[in-house]
Amino acid sequence: MEAVSTESRTHTHPLLMRFLHIRKRSVELCSALKTEDFVCQPVAWVSPPKWHLAHTTWFFEAFILTRFLPDYQLFHKDYNFLFNSYYETIGERVQRNHRGMLFRPPLEDIFAYRRYVEEHMAHLLKENADPLVSELVELGLQHEQQHQELLITDTKYIFTQNPLLPVWDAKATLETLRQAAALQWLSVEEGVYEIGYEGTGFCFDNEWGRHKQYLRNFSIMNRPVTNGEYLEFLEAGGYQNFRYWLSEGWEWVKENDIVHPMYWYKIEEQWWSYHLDGLNPLDPALPLMHISYFEADAYARWKGQRLPTEFEWETAARLYPACFKNEVWEWTQSAYLAYPGFRIAEGATGEYNGKFMINQMVLRGGSLATAPGHSRVSYRNFFHPHLQWQFSGVRLVNDA
Amino acid sequence: MEAVSTESRTHTHPLLMRFLHIRKRSVELCSALKTEDFVCQPVAWVSPPKWHLAHTTWFFEAFILTRFLPDYQLFHKDYNFLFNSYYETIGERVQRNHRGMLFRPPLEDIFAYRRYVEEHMAHLLKENADPLVSELVELGLQHEQQHQELLITDTKYIFTQNPLLPVWDAKATLETLRQAAALQWLSVEEGVYEIGYEGTGFCFDNEWGRHKQYLRNFSIMNRPVTNGEYLEFLEAGGYQNFRYWLSEGWEWVKENDIVHPMYWYKIEEQWWSYHLDGLNPLDPALPLMHISYFEADAYARWKGQRLPTEFEWETAARLYPACFKNEVWEWTQSAYLAYPGFRIAEGATGEYNGKFMINQMVLRGGSLATAPGHSRVSYRNFFHPHLQWQFSGVRLVNDA
Amino acid sequence: MEAVSTESRTHTHPLLMRFLHIRKRSVELCSALKTEDFVCQPVAWVSPPKWHLAHTTWFFEAFILTRFLPDYQLFHKDYNFLFNSYYETIGERVQRNHRGMLFRPPLEDIFAYRRYVEEHMAHLLKENADPLVSELVELGLQHEQQHQELLITDTKYIFTQNPLLPVWDAKATLETLRQAAALQWLSVEEGVYEIGYEGTGFCFDNEWGRHKQYLRNFSIMNRPVTNGEYLEFLEAGGYQNFRYWLSEGWEWVKENDIVHPMYWYKIEEQWWSYHLDGLNPLDPALPLMHISYFEADAYARWKGQRLPTEFEWETAARLYPACFKNEVWEWTQSAYLAYPGFRIAEGATGEYNGKFMINQMVLRGGSLATAPGHSRVSYRNFFHPHLQWQFSGVRLVNDA
Amino acid sequence: MEAVSTESRTHTHPLLMRFLHIRKRSVELCSALKTEDFVCQPVAWVSPPKWHLAHTTWFFEAFILTRFLPDYQLFHKDYNFLFNSYYETIGERVQRNHRGMLFRPPLEDIFAYRRYVEEHMAHLLKENADPLVSELVELGLQHEQQHQELLITDTKYIFTQNPLLPVWDAKATLETLRQAAALQWLSVEEGVYEIGYEGTGFCFDNEWGRHKQYLRNFSIMNRPVTNGEYLEFLEAGGYQNFRYWLSEGWEWVKENDIVHPMYWYKIEEQWWSYHLDGLNPLDPALPLMHISYFEADAYARWKGQRLPTEFEWETAARLYPACFKNEVWEWTQSAYLAYPGFRIAEGATGEYNGKFMINQMVLRGGSLATAPGHSRVSYRNFFHPHLQWQFSGVRLVNDA
Repeated sequence: MEAVSTESRTHTHPLLMRFLHIRKRSVELCSALKTEDFVCQPVAWVSPPKWHLAHTTWFFEAFILTRFLPDYQLFHKDYNFLFNSYYETIGERVQRNHRGMLFRPPLEDIFAYRRYVEEHMAHLLKENADPLVSELVELGLQHEQQHQELLITDTKYIFTQNPLLPVWDAKATLETLRQAAALQWLSVEEGVYEIGYEGTGFCFDNEWGRHKQYLRNFSIMNRPVTNGEYLEFLEAGGYQNFRYWLSEGWEWVKENDIVHPMYWYKIEEQWWSYHLDGLNPLDPALPLMHISYFEADAYARWKGQRLPTEFEWETAARLYPACFKNEVWEWTQSAYLAYPGFRIAEGATGEYNGKFMINQMVLRGGSLATAPGHSRVSYRNFFHPHLQWQFSGVRLVNDA
Repeated sequence: MEAVSTESRTHTHPLLMRFLHIRKRSVELCSALKTEDFVCQPVAWVSPPKWHLAHTTWFFEAFILTRFLPDYQLFHKDYNFLFNSYYETIGERVQRNHRGMLFRPPLEDIFAYRRYVEEHMAHLLKENADPLVSELVELGLQHEQQHQELLITDTKYIFTQNPLLPVWDAKATLETLRQAAALQWLSVEEGVYEIGYEGTGFCFDNEWGRHKQYLRNFSIMNRPVTNGEYLEFLEAGGYQNFRYWLSEGWEWVKENDIVHPMYWYKIEEQWWSYHLDGLNPLDPALPLMHISYFEADAYARWKGQRLPTEFEWETAARLYPACFKNEVWEWTQSAYLAYPGFRIAEGATGEYNGKFMINQMVLRGGSLATAPGHSRVSYRNFFHPHLQWQFSGVRLVNDA
Repeated sequence: MEAVSTESRTHTHPLLMRFLHIRKRSVELCSALKTEDFVCQPVAWVSPPKWHLAHTTWFFEAFILTRFLPDYQLFHKDYNFLFNSYYETIGERVQRNHRGMLFRPPLEDIFAYRRYVEEHMAHLLKENADPLVSELVELGLQHEQQHQELLITDTKYIFTQNPLLPVWDAKATLETLRQAAALQWLSVEEGVYEIGYEGTGFCFDNEWGRHKQYLRNFSIMNRPVTNGEYLEFLEAGGYQNFRYWLSEGWEWVKENDIVHPMYWYKIEEQWWSYHLDGLNPLDPALPLMHISYFEADAYARWKGQRLPTEFEWETAARLYPACFKNEVWEWTQSAYLAYPGFRIAEGATGEYNGKFMINQMVLRGGSLATAPGHSRVSYRNFFHPHLQWQFSGVRLVNDA
Repeated sequence: MEAVSTESRTHTHPLLMRFLHIRKRSVELCSALKTEDFVCQPVAWVSPPKWHLAHTTWFFEAFILTRFLPDYQLFHKDYNFLFNSYYETIGERVQRNHRGMLFRPPLEDIFAYRRYVEEHMAHLLKENADPLVSELVELGLQHEQQHQELLITDTKYIFTQNPLLPVWDAKATLETLRQAAALQWLSVEEGVYEIGYEGTGFCFDNEWGRHKQYLRNFSIMNRPVTNGEYLEFLEAGGYQNFRYWLSEGWEWVKENDIVHPMYWYKIEEQWWSYHLDGLNPLDPALPLMHISYFEADAYARWKGQRLPTEFEWETAARLYPACFKNEVWEWTQSAYLAYPGFRIAEGATGEYNGKFMINQMVLRGGSLATAPGHSRVSYRNFFHPHLQWQFSGVRLVNDA
């Protein structure tokens, strides 16, 4: 949807090319959606596609254009209020659970907003070589990639809240899940290991603070748990027996009548699962997805095993890279907390990670919905332990 | 949007002409809406425009076509589930507070549904002279007119929940409010009066059971209360003094921080009101609208007067027809209850009125949003006493 | 518990004798309770016994002693805050749903408070002949009698919320329910009837405004519905069929899983009911108690009959006094609204009735828990239609 | 309250002496309470004193007497249902938020229950030398000591929910807070440290799994933060500035209107704090108490410092024992998670700790309300981050 003329002038500017390439993918992901599909917000923790498209654009306007492009005119005076997510530094904003009332501005205005910001970003990038700009652009692109995954995750949820259970043919743009390999256990030896980002490329602030962790002997699965393996837990009465569950997990199971992973349906004694291409018979050989931490933990206890810490996960992934393919996010038994020496940056970008370091558990790896090139071995994802709507699975560990 | 061919063949069939005329108005009312405007449901008691368009169509399909048109094929097997409102007789339905998740079927399908049902209704009406069919068609049209008013009422509410406070230029299709006449008091003498529908035309079952009521002397205003008159109550601290309020009304005021009628805004010491054409300075000479029963009752107590019973209202309206112009619905101090001899009809149409006879107060008259020709002096509207979003005002009474 | 000396000096003062007699009954009603039983409040609409004992005492202190007894010293400066119920005129008060936190003042202080106020009332009454004082004392005694019934009603509810389902042997002080007489229908002829209090004794303000009502022919049961009659409705699937229910009643049934009157228990295929003397097999010949308006209305619809209006009830009770024995309160299909000419009195006592005239239905008669001598044919009791905890039943009507 | 005869026979049995000594303290703690004070439960996470007294007794009955004392007769068949807390293994129980409805059994029965169980425990201990019994008795006593602290904590909360703000003179039985020493910073050097319980005495299962942690250089305060130090944060607008708060902490502040630690009151420009001896002017030199993790974390951020991890805390406490006096529990920035090799024990006692390992943060040390002899340097307490009602404070750390 970007103007051809803009693209043609960008050959020689790698960051601008990267910028336009990533931005284009956001729009392409939505190509199969109808206008009405962009609007609804069934629950507070899910945002409508329209909002993702606007919010990622607002990021570039609020943090870069208004600051670094002289005489920049806002696309619309109210958009800062409408499309700020949680940056208190930037001012007032629409409450998170009211995003489903943003039927206006209409979708066509959001696309115009995207183009307007992209054109001005192109001007800026071609004329401004300030390394701070490049750094913020890179942050904005990482941010947009994260929202690309959220857009997929949220739209999947939104579609299952409609009684017609519509099919969303976005499959073409996603990675394909593979049938699981035979189970093997990978050994890691006791010792002090280095944890955290090492290198000169981009990483988030929560990966900084490379530090030592003392690990004991353990072995870890060579791939995530499959649907078929988890089905054994379910059929053994796993959801009916408090013994396997954390206390808050058991309350969650009972209050919400949870009896299977999200998007599983039992129809006439047959298990089905909903994916972007609609409802299909559950494939036992595919990786298990859409489980909460509570379910991951209960499954591990039932197996007599446990989840890895994020330090064990990262160490194993460095030692056995071929066994970590990022098909599903993998819950770890580490709470999302600061690494030694972690400091929150000044200003609004400092609100990116640190303020969420409570009540969330770390997931490692990546998923079929993660943007290409967005993963790292030191990458730390995090969600509350009761949430299932992410592409989240699990891989188990045995103490030696 | 109806096919021209259908219309051209209907000259000689008055009920079909009436059918198509009323159906057409529903679509015309929406002509200024964008596709995204049809979808959202901010609260459970408001329905999206798309739902009104589909539900009124479903009424003809469920109660007439499937029953009287041989070999009728449903437009879509799931629409009965999607667009039933509250008819338990007809089966399961989407919960009222989930209507905001009906982004699918897309709007274009709803318009196709309307045309499909209209074409089949045209066939039926031209070939079936069963008086029961005519009766049900008339009920369906009255029902559609009621939803036309709800569509206007709901869309006004929906638009004020969007941070941009958009303008909806539907004004052309509505009655215009008039500046209030000078206040006079109309006298009614003590005696036994007949109440309820009298005639051979259509009326709802709740108007049946014409019966006698003994009234005492009273006088009633020659027009509803104006914005300016109510503003005096507000400025005298009416919303801060429990003395004027019913106990539940005072709780409602405090819990919801109510300090003015719905759609009033105070901006820099000036009062504005939102109407379909946007935000305008409050006109003190226009009829007061969008007040709850609690506010109507508190205002009356502050004035040392009272609301009319629905029997007083109906009697005065028969005696002084020129003074009852149906610009706003007028709260009465009558609870919505059965008239003597009221019986609920067998079958689904019996669910129309009787089952709502609890916890609601009667409003009489009509409003600028009421469909042309839909009002009657015996017409009984009813809502819960805390609701403001209707075009509801009040007219006071003095005991002699 | 009153001092004997106080009583001995009161022979010759009828109002004081009446005062002490009624006050004594409040304490006697509690004689079988343990200290811990006086404290708990399981839901907001139920008050602990301790609160009833204190609040009825506060009424005399706040409305009479502080106003008419020179140099009266408050028993405790905080009790006005603690034991005011809903009189906004009198100032701030403990929120209704926090009455269960009044473990302090201890019970012994409440009894001391009662004695203190009674002694000062005795002084006042022996020296002050102001008719306004007599009028307020009478209002205070009527108020105390109402709270005696509420104390019984609330304690019954409180006891069933304890897992041990304790027995409260207060039966000695209550009327005994009688086995029902054979069913007969009492006829009333069409005409204009006078409604409301007539006489020179005490009545509440909501009974004032004696006025004419035009009634049509009807016949009414000679006694309330029995447990056995209602059991037929239950066993015919009455709680599973929406057809019999008001829309809000059906929601209430489903949301609260209501499948029988309050205090009915089904244990091993046998029906039991809890009363003050504990759990007993359900007696089909006793009057049905503890049903909501929704249940009364659904039962009537199932029987093809209806509830009386309060005007029909009052007229029948005047014509056939022997058939109205006040064993259970009887729901009518009249909303609780003002009679013609009703005016709210100035000051705090004006808050007694008028401000509750919304969303409640009228019950007529009285119950086994009503204080002796407290009933009148014009007496109007009122509760919200979903409440079951009152001693509430129903009597049906047939149109002629 | 224990029978003298029982005590006199126990001289020579150290565990029995310890048992009776600890049991006696529970009753002594309640000596200043009135009967009504034992009953109320203002919120679900607070239990009434009566419940603590019964539940600690039930522990010995359910886990020891019914299993090891031949022919033991339950004191009451329903008490297992009434006084089980959360042990799913043991069966159904009163829901946690219904403990405030246990006005029956009366208090006298609870004391009889305590004596009955103590007498039977005395028989058992004198005749049964099974080491498993001794182990379970020790667990039961540790459990009772934990509930002694909870009883104090809960009663303090309960008393502040009563409008009279009563004084509870339990001070005699508690440790006294000391004025803070001058601030110094204690240094700890980088290296691998051993963490977890070491020894042969009692410890909880969550302290097992002694293991190595790699720590970096840091320094830690020689005492907890004082009221006066925290007041500077408050007066600098700490509760009004999002910058210092975790995102969930900021929501907590705004939703609950938190503007100071629990039990602080501002009366006419002066700060007061409520303690067991009533309301007193806030003493700036005493340790800060009753703050949530969110407040501890915000304060640290405002100071430009941070909370210790539990590993840092334990290491510092081993190195500088004189500086860790256990006056207040100290929040750490460690989530409550399993140590390496942690295994949940079989059976009900396995429910003691492991199932709470989610969404809670670790506190270390002890408080003035902790039972004498109950603390250990490896002791891990844990609560949800928003809770203030514990005797919880904080001690800060600087990175070197």
